[in-house]
Amino acid sequence: MADALRVGIAGLGTVGASLVRIIQTRANELAVTCGRPIEIAAVTARDRTRDRGIDISAVTWFDSAEELAANAEIDVFVELMGGAEGAAADSVRAALRRGLHVVTANKALLAASGVELARIAEENGALLNFEAAVAGGIPVIKALRESLTGNTISRVYGIMNGTCNYILTRMEKEGLSFADCLKEAQRLGYAEADPAFDIEGNDTAHKLAILTTLAFGTQIAPDEIYLEGITNISIDDIHAAADLGYRIKLLGVAQRTETGIEQRVHPTMVPRDSVIAQVDGVTNAVAIESDILGELLMVGPGAGGNATASSVLGDIADIAKSRPGAQQVPVLGIPAASLTPYKRAQMQSHEGGYFIRLTVADRTGVFASIAARMAENAISLESIVQRSKPDSSAMSKTIILVTHATMENSVRKAVDAIKAESYLVGEPQVIRIERPKDM
Amino acid sequence: MADALRVGIAGLGTVGASLVRIIQTRANELAVTCGRPIEIAAVTARDRTRDRGIDISAVTWFDSAEELAANAEIDVFVELMGGAEGAAADSVRAALRRGLHVVTANKALLAASGVELARIAEENGALLNFEAAVAGGIPVIKALRESLTGNTISRVYGIMNGTCNYILTRMEKEGLSFADCLKEAQRLGYAEADPAFDIEGNDTAHKLAILTTLAFGTQIAPDEIYLEGITNISIDDIHAAADLGYRIKLLGVAQRTETGIEQRVHPTMVPRDSVIAQVDGVTNAVAIESDILGELLMVGPGAGGNATASSVLGDIADIAKSRPGAQQVPVLGIPAASLTPYKRAQMQSHEGGYFIRLTVADRTGVFASIAARMAENAISLESIVQRSKPDSSAMSKTIILVTHATMENSVRKAVDAIKAESYLVGEPQVIRIERPKDM
Repeated sequence: MADALRVGIAGLGTVGASLVRIIQTRANELAVTCGRPIEIAAVTARDRTRDRGIDISAVTWFDSAEELAANAEIDVFVELMGGAEGAAADSVRAALRRGLHVVTANKALLAASGVELARIAEENGALLNFEAAVAGGIPVIKALRESLTGNTISRVYGIMNGTCNYILTRMEKEGLSFADCLKEAQRLGYAEADPAFDIEGNDTAHKLAILTTLAFGTQIAPDEIYLEGITNISIDDIHAAADLGYRIKLLGVAQRTETGIEQRVHPTMVPRDSVIAQVDGVTNAVAIESDILGELLMVGPGAGGNATASSVLGDIADIAKSRPGAQQVPVLGIPAASLTPYKRAQMQSHEGGYFIRLTVADRTGVFASIAARMAENAISLESIVQRSKPDSSAMSKTIILVTHATMENSVRKAVDAIKAESYLVGEPQVIRIERPKDM
Repeated sequence: MADALRVGIAGLGTVGASLVRIIQTRANELAVTCGRPIEIAAVTARDRTRDRGIDISAVTWFDSAEELAANAEIDVFVELMGGAEGAAADSVRAALRRGLHVVTANKALLAASGVELARIAEENGALLNFEAAVAGGIPVIKALRESLTGNTISRVYGIMNGTCNYILTRMEKEGLSFADCLKEAQRLGYAEADPAFDIEGNDTAHKLAILTTLAFGTQIAPDEIYLEGITNISIDDIHAAADLGYRIKLLGVAQRTETGIEQRVHPTMVPRDSVIAQVDGVTNAVAIESDILGELLMVGPGAGGNATASSVLGDIADIAKSRPGAQQVPVLGIPAASLTPYKRAQMQSHEGGYFIRLTVADRTGVFASIAARMAENAISLESIVQRSKPDSSAMSKTIILVTHATMENSVRKAVDAIKAESYLVGEPQVIRIERPKDM
């Protein structure tokens, strides 16, 4: 049997501890599958003495990730610390410059510096694997980087944040408010004490930026993403969506258009009968539409120590199965030098269906005025629902419009025109509709 | 840039012609992604003169697959002829013995001789890739062979036959009979003139046998599969399933149990709210349940020239990205010599929920008798629905039972006891229920 693959792990949080446990308890199976043993040769973490339920007494300890990356006798450097800069970034760079293969779950680092790291890896004959960085246990990086070779991809979209999907699912199933569901998610550990990064869509955006590059061969552009979180989604929206045959999900969408690549993260209505609409709770899903394969959808756990460790281990095993320097899977699907500049398609040019919910004064002529504003902007309507509050003494009513495919710009103009009218009560709600191909 | 990867293709049907077209029209992109050109160096097919809409005038023609495999100057032999024996099997063996890498879409060949071929490949330092053999465009082989390394898998199941899923979907959506939907499927080219291989479950069984080996590390055992097709599914079953919150799918299921591995193909009721229940028409889906990753579900096209060619191309690209002899992904997940004997779990010991539909004479005491037969076999019931025909002059009524988890053996005994009673009209219908984890 070939020599052991020596692994150094930086970061022993939930994922790191899981990974150590799996590699140690499945040593025999891994050696058979990979054709060589996988050996944990070095580790580093913030606190050496903490009890993590794993035995690392025989493993060489380093006091910092940078030191481990620079000096440990290893073949693979596994970075599980997180963060776009600092020790994670420095140690990954150092490891790649030494020609060490790197496995990381760090989406922030890849979104910020993925192209630079890919270049360093390729210059030094090193592999850089990051399956766990997007959608946890779902092998979407492998699908894009390997399985779909030769395909021209038209759209990638998905549910990539478990916190948001958990909140939206609870709201729908139990009729609870956003605030109540957020509290529940925090209590269960599905949301951070400061939940902004998740619920404002930033986490999804990091992941989307990585998928965009793999799908379209463009440079990573995390700052060019249209961003809208789920904090404004009300239970009324969810009920209205259900009545019209839709469910609301926070999607990240990257799409090739005639004017460039759209990257957007926003609450989205998806047809209730679509497969992705059934993806509930903290589960993630990613769909890839391409010209040869067609549509591929993958559903699985998006986070959690074990699911993430499983993807990290798959990345390590891929390295173990190849001989050093032998494999040439380009880090970002094509060599870093071949990536093209990212050209942003303006959100105003986005074309799709829209759900528009308006609360208006209950008086004559209001409906005619709204219809006129739509017509003036050449927006054709798929359905119109008018509802009065059950309390019939209320002076307002709700009007819901669903448009056929139209331009974002037209919708914005129509809504602005309605906002200038005296009959509007409160802010209009606008939610984009996304349909799987052929739905 | 490295030397071109020279490919020889045996079989120029829909998939083969698609593959040639893609490799020729995307030559530049493929060279960038793979780090070397992919060149079609040799082809063979039944009829040299047929117009396939592709230009193979510059490609060396061989008169037989065996001759191509033996003599062509190629690196990869691509077998797209089909069939468990004859030219396909002989040429694949010959190619592997020469140390050529092989890519095939041939599920029948792999189900029949996969272990032998894996051994030959491994002895000769050749790769044997077969992503297209199971579920067409869905990268389930890669997921099992690579992504899930280190996971212990408990169950693999899926919709792996588009013909059956198309028929069941049409029956449900349009209230048509099995016979009418089969005719429609034949008219649209989704079913063969002789549809038995699809609708009796044999096609699903071939694919399941391959997945079982990858999931559980056991020798391929296609003859050890419990098999039940969809020909007995009536529109009444589908309606009753819908009323109870289920949909009916033909599933292939492989499951680890205490007494061995269950392999079974049969019509199955799945909860309507599950993701797999939404997979309609000719689309396929495969779910993998494992201890580290959790549940992974992949949905995509299960057949078609392009989708299949996409998987074949992915397999070729994997070879192009590795240097000859460098990569060591074992053909069947672990080396052929390490596969363990397949131990069959008896179907009588299968544990799960059951749907039982009985048509009985409309007279006093019948229900009590049925309930007694269930109780005698320790079967506990989740729901009981009794229906009289709308035509109230009918002398029979329908009783539907849904059981909690119980043993197949108990259900068979109870149904046999009921069959001995004078009140039973026609054959009882029994459909197994399969639930995703946590549903």
